Amino acid sequence: MKVEIITVGNELTLGEVVNTNAVFMASSLTERGFEVSCIATVGDNEYCIEDALLRAQEHADAIVVSGGLGPTADDVTANSAAKALGRRMTINKEILQSLRESFARRGMEMPLANEKQAFFPHQAEIIPNPLGTASGFILRHKGRIYVFLPGVPRELKHLFSENVLPLLEKERQDKPCFRSRTLKVFGFTESAIADRLKGITLQSHSAALAYLPRFPENHVKITASGKSPEEVAKNLEEMEKIIREKLEGRVFAFDTETLEEIVGRMLRSNLATLAVAESCTGGLIAHRLTQIPGSSDYFEWGLVTYSNRAKVEILKVPEELLATHGAVSALVAEKMAEGVQQISQSTLGLGVTGIAGPGGGSEEKPVGTVFIALASPRGILSKRYQFQGDREQIKIISAHTAIDWVRRYFLNVLSGISGQPA
Amino acid sequence: MKVEIITVGNELTLGEVVNTNAVFMASSLTERGFEVSCIATVGDNEYCIEDALLRAQEHADAIVVSGGLGPTADDVTANSAAKALGRRMTINKEILQSLRESFARRGMEMPLANEKQAFFPHQAEIIPNPLGTASGFILRHKGRIYVFLPGVPRELKHLFSENVLPLLEKERQDKPCFRSRTLKVFGFTESAIADRLKGITLQSHSAALAYLPRFPENHVKITASGKSPEEVAKNLEEMEKIIREKLEGRVFAFDTETLEEIVGRMLRSNLATLAVAESCTGGLIAHRLTQIPGSSDYFEWGLVTYSNRAKVEILKVPEELLATHGAVSALVAEKMAEGVQQISQSTLGLGVTGIAGPGGGSEEKPVGTVFIALASPRGILSKRYQFQGDREQIKIISAHTAIDWVRRYFLNVLSGISGQPA
Repeated sequence: MKVEIITVGNELTLGEVVNTNAVFMASSLTERGFEVSCIATVGDNEYCIEDALLRAQEHADAIVVSGGLGPTADDVTANSAAKALGRRMTINKEILQSLRESFARRGMEMPLANEKQAFFPHQAEIIPNPLGTASGFILRHKGRIYVFLPGVPRELKHLFSENVLPLLEKERQDKPCFRSRTLKVFGFTESAIADRLKGITLQSHSAALAYLPRFPENHVKITASGKSPEEVAKNLEEMEKIIREKLEGRVFAFDTETLEEIVGRMLRSNLATLAVAESCTGGLIAHRLTQIPGSSDYFEWGLVTYSNRAKVEILKVPEELLATHGAVSALVAEKMAEGVQQISQSTLGLGVTGIAGPGGGSEEKPVGTVFIALASPRGILSKRYQFQGDREQIKIISAHTAIDWVRRYFLNVLSGISGQPA
Repeated sequence: MKVEIITVGNELTLGEVVNTNAVFMASSLTERGFEVSCIATVGDNEYCIEDALLRAQEHADAIVVSGGLGPTADDVTANSAAKALGRRMTINKEILQSLRESFARRGMEMPLANEKQAFFPHQAEIIPNPLGTASGFILRHKGRIYVFLPGVPRELKHLFSENVLPLLEKERQDKPCFRSRTLKVFGFTESAIADRLKGITLQSHSAALAYLPRFPENHVKITASGKSPEEVAKNLEEMEKIIREKLEGRVFAFDTETLEEIVGRMLRSNLATLAVAESCTGGLIAHRLTQIPGSSDYFEWGLVTYSNRAKVEILKVPEELLATHGAVSALVAEKMAEGVQQISQSTLGLGVTGIAGPGGGSEEKPVGTVFIALASPRGILSKRYQFQGDREQIKIISAHTAIDWVRRYFLNVLSGISGQPA
């Protein structure tokens, strides 16, 4: 089944935002064996939208349109669809009522502008939107399916996954036999991964590989095909096993799993708790750990000790250590890890200190110098890193490396310098 | 001058990479007053590329194509261009020679595959590529300009900026006079903004407005035109003034400025320091404040006190307060703000406690209940909020609201309940 994607929005043709909706829909469709023939992006302009809709039907069986369903005057997708496909606009009283009710629940009267969102082209099948005021809808025209979705990424993702993919699966004639899996790698560059995987014979497993850099991670996407679902599953599994071996424990997750989820699960199953003392990462580690629902079970304390005084007063880092070694040093990272572990009475204490830049670097400790330390029942480990990038990138890669330390600790593959009493 | 962008590559239609080339070209063109009518994205497929080229000439004066000029068999853009525009392919001996030389300089013999990169459609004007082996080229056909560029982002950016923009500037007939400014709004929904701005007469200022939701912010982009740069500036300024008044202090920044930059500047110019005690935001406030270079001058301490014990031990929140009012309460938020202000000796202390979900809600305090408190030399203020969304959204909007409190404090427009001694 051929699918064309049309993304609508002035913010796209003006180059104000990256088109993440297009990449999300294209990858979801590709994973399920749909062929994406073309992605058209047009501004909030009736003529352009109509034109794109009419053209799409020439080479696609299904057309998925996102954006332009908002309450304001510049949102014209529904009207354009009606014109392109020769329909009149009609009000849907149920949607109008539910819009009014949803505003009332928040103690607000519905703004007049939102009434527009209860109008749809004649004979539209409504896709209710539990996350916002813009309902999606489906039109059938000359043997083609047209699907219209709001452009707010969170709403689009939800409606696309829950409604559009099942609809297209049901309507398709061809049932291809293949599956994909994305392995997430941290700690090897893209070319290092490619070098390590060079010798693999893909043909014997009917598999293809794609390399996807996702800073600070690198992803390897395996797509395996076969004559039956069983054969596909076997090919995929064998290929995954080979790759995981070649990448020596650097594959930390697959598909939608995140590093903080993996680490959270490890902490929970080991009945362990974690506390962090952050300097250069400035709260990013705590923020990422607490993205996981229920993280309060294993994460109780985070300290952002930007200043020396904070390090001394709360974490009990000795002042003479700061004076002799500097705040960015292995010994200070170790004392931070130890300090936060002790005051929080957590199983593990993570300490991170470094220079995120752009200022503050020196010849001996340039921007990107970061020390990570972990205090655990097995003792204290620390390590010096030299990261590259701007302030934000250095924060991100430092936080990622530190969280990965916890994963590697539980896997018994963490190595560093053993801490010495100062 | 209307420009259409065509980006070519299977990695795009398969959804493997975000289309950063499109956003780069669209924003560069928009900034210079070119109108981008449509962005088409097609796979590495001769039929699709030809079709896209022929369609583009119907509504654009210039067509810029990127991708598909590589040495491998799947790169077919040059051939497709020749077919679409009725040209034969001819070899360019100078380019062939310079390709051979560039390989020789690296001590390599040119792979046979690269010979292909010396073939161009007849009468192509070559755009030499100092950064790679794929030269760009220009074709003129039926009064339209077609430009073809390699898809490697670094090479594309260079050739686009150095060659394509100057070419299009030279060829254009219209010399438009307009400027845009984006006002960033926090605290009003998109429809509330639209309602407030409905009465504005845009025509008298030759201005247009676009609404851009950027959760948790909403942006209003003003584009003003005029007969001279002075008239444009006047129209833009007047329009901005009107909008700022109608939105009652909710415009916190414009264009590329961020809330944390504004707040950082306010803290610095008031010689004030800030410390934060976070519960439900889990470190996000500290992370955002420390994104700004030099933030260590005014931000020294951040405490993520997820557990009650952390609140009691570090922040000295009285245990009986937690027992009687619960951790999510105005009084606890106030004690957190006061606690972190005192131990850090900062000018301001911010305390945030709430329920980010998905668990932990009750009838009295459902998910999204958040208390924010600010301790300052003027006393303590606190306020209860009821936010909507998933865990991540509640964290984001809580952090944004709390940081905005600091801005509103300095502007003397912060209101809440004055804190009482417990």
